[in-house]
Amino acid sequence: MEIQIAVAKINKHDTVESGDTLEFVERPNGGISVVMADARSSGHAAKAISSSIVHKVINMLADGVRDGAAARAASDMLYTERNGQTSAYLNILSVDLQTCTLVICRNNPTPIYIAFDEKIEFLSGEGTPIGVSRNIRPAISEIALETGITIVTFTDGILNAGKADGLAADIPTLLESLLEEQQPSSQSIADTILAEAIRLDRNKPSDDMSLIVLRVLPRETDAIRRVNIRIPYKIQIED
Amino acid sequence: MEIQIAVAKINKHDTVESGDTLEFVERPNGGISVVMADARSSGHAAKAISSSIVHKVINMLADGVRDGAAARAASDMLYTERNGQTSAYLNILSVDLQTCTLVICRNNPTPIYIAFDEKIEFLSGEGTPIGVSRNIRPAISEIALETGITIVTFTDGILNAGKADGLAADIPTLLESLLEEQQPSSQSIADTILAEAIRLDRNKPSDDMSLIVLRVLPRETDAIRRVNIRIPYKIQIED
Repeated sequence: MEIQIAVAKINKHDTVESGDTLEFVERPNGGISVVMADARSSGHAAKAISSSIVHKVINMLADGVRDGAAARAASDMLYTERNGQTSAYLNILSVDLQTCTLVICRNNPTPIYIAFDEKIEFLSGEGTPIGVSRNIRPAISEIALETGITIVTFTDGILNAGKADGLAADIPTLLESLLEEQQPSSQSIADTILAEAIRLDRNKPSDDMSLIVLRVLPRETDAIRRVNIRIPYKIQIED
Repeated sequence: MEIQIAVAKINKHDTVESGDTLEFVERPNGGISVVMADARSSGHAAKAISSSIVHKVINMLADGVRDGAAARAASDMLYTERNGQTSAYLNILSVDLQTCTLVICRNNPTPIYIAFDEKIEFLSGEGTPIGVSRNIRPAISEIALETGITIVTFTDGILNAGKADGLAADIPTLLESLLEEQQPSSQSIADTILAEAIRLDRNKPSDDMSLIVLRVLPRETDAIRRVNIRIPYKIQIED
């Protein structure tokens, strides 16, 4: 089978830096983790905080620390550094090939959708942000690594898209219609949901938006791992 | 324009862990870096060394350290830790959106191919591995970030493919024929070169193989960054 992870990410309209940071790390006992932090507000200060959190978590995961312990440590560090004055959302999504599970570690109340084939469930509630007090714990869910699973997780920029006009993206319905197609790729699902969120914000995202889609597909594969990154870039003079 | 970075990676035949480690990091002042380390031999010990080097470099880059300084520091750290007994190859390939340049930082004699449209040049020689003595310096090349550039860099598993049979991949010719096509994607170039290397090793790679292809294309784009990761996975019972 093939594990496909796709990310699509756009900055708040007219800002150069995103307050969302999202990085990948190979797990030392096999597999991969995606770490996503969303600091309050956007711009340079928010970027510095979310980037610092993500790199602390990534270093711990690379050293073999379990996801939950890494999230707790990141919370304690942020609490100590900022004296409890700064909070941030943190999600860790891991493909653990040692235990053959998918691990979802949440310090973020933004819902996460999980589809088993076309049946969609979601994780919500709980998910206290890190850094606000001592003893913050993540909400952790473990799912057996099986074909047909799709996980969709995103920052609140996507959840709140359209809010100014009293609108909101109906992600479960959108996801359901996408999954009815013939094995859509993770990237096409991510692109479609992000496009809908941008549309609801009248093509000017009112917050940084990041989205991760993980799928486990029953495809025949070679033994090759592939990563593909696409970064849009405008020469400054053209601006 | 669009910056496309593609990676294709396969383990040495019949080994679970690769001695090559390859990770990405967002640059704090804009852009992205790919850090690739190739420790001598393969398996668990080699993986631990290359992973430790890559994470040290990534943390420095994330903190704003320049590529050359990060490579020197990684060399000094490895030299100190291992008393000069362990060497490793290290490549850092950066898209620096602050200076609008592509930066190639090499502690690896394996050639790097750079195509300006269809004209292919290469960087070779120099490139001392890190960790073997004090005062190791990387070879650094800077190129203006312009459309039409293609950079191909890889570990020696690809360079030495077919060696047992007295063969070798003719990468420049292969790259030239690929670039004659209508704007091939980075991923299709990476896949084709890796497939050729695997074929030369009679479909059983005699070493870990990793390949990075970076292209700067004149495509119209939206403002969305995308990452797509594909990991082949076999359920253990099927083995």
